[in-house]
Amino acid sequence: MNKRLISVVVLWAVLSVAACGERLDTTPAREILQVMQTAEAGWNAGDLEQYMACYRQSDRLRFAGGDRVSFGWHQVLANYRRSYPDRATMGTLTFSEMDVTMLAPDAAIVFGRWQLARETDATAADQPRGLFTLVFRREDGDWRIVHDHTSSAG
Amino acid sequence: MNKRLISVVVLWAVLSVAACGERLDTTPAREILQVMQTAEAGWNAGDLEQYMACYRQSDRLRFAGGDRVSFGWHQVLANYRRSYPDRATMGTLTFSEMDVTMLAPDAAIVFGRWQLARETDATAADQPRGLFTLVFRREDGDWRIVHDHTSSAG
Repeated sequence: MNKRLISVVVLWAVLSVAACGERLDTTPAREILQVMQTAEAGWNAGDLEQYMACYRQSDRLRFAGGDRVSFGWHQVLANYRRSYPDRATMGTLTFSEMDVTMLAPDAAIVFGRWQLARETDATAADQPRGLFTLVFRREDGDWRIVHDHTSSAG
Repeated sequence: MNKRLISVVVLWAVLSVAACGERLDTTPAREILQVMQTAEAGWNAGDLEQYMACYRQSDRLRFAGGDRVSFGWHQVLANYRRSYPDRATMGTLTFSEMDVTMLAPDAAIVFGRWQLARETDATAADQPRGLFTLVFRREDGDWRIVHDHTSSAG
């Protein structure tokens, strides 16, 4: 390989990495991941209201899991309150492997993993975990989840 | 209410229904539901290849269920073949309550229920069922699933 060809290959590699970085760092994807981080932090502070700010506050919000569907922000909050009545059951939530796909300037899909670390008693630890597919829409400048499909291991 | 006002109200009602019907009957949503119907018919004919035609034939196809993710059309087909090795385990598939949301001219979400009716032996019947969230993209004129998140009653 001569020097000129090596330069072209290196330039191509640098441009490819730069282009890839630019794609991942687009403002909408960053904003959406920020919403997810704020939700995670809210959960881990035991603040369900902060967590719930990631969801569109609307009667049309849809939450699907297993074979059950719930509609509406207040219903979803009530479900969380029933399933996670205290700090111990909330445990520590971690989102990982999040993949943001922009479908339109005002629509995106976020796919990723969730895991809950908690200790139910002195001897046993359980770690509920699974996957989520989220539909984010942008309205009035804010990215919010309008549809959440969550599945669990097991 | 006088006759003129009644006429206006009736006209408004007729136009509203017509507008609503037009929205539901948009060509992309019709095309997407047709893809789903063809898939359902393929499954119920024991034809996994016809069923699989609803998915983008790509290595980037993503299928999520429980806490497991699979990538690629061939892997998804292999998973189906392993889980449903014969006509008896395939049973009869029914999609219901399908809701199509257009996110862009080339992107849509389909949310709905699936149910499998089958008899595992002479005395017992099992009916696996659950929900799905599908991301459809249009490429080269064809609507295909690029991401499938399926959950089961548990």
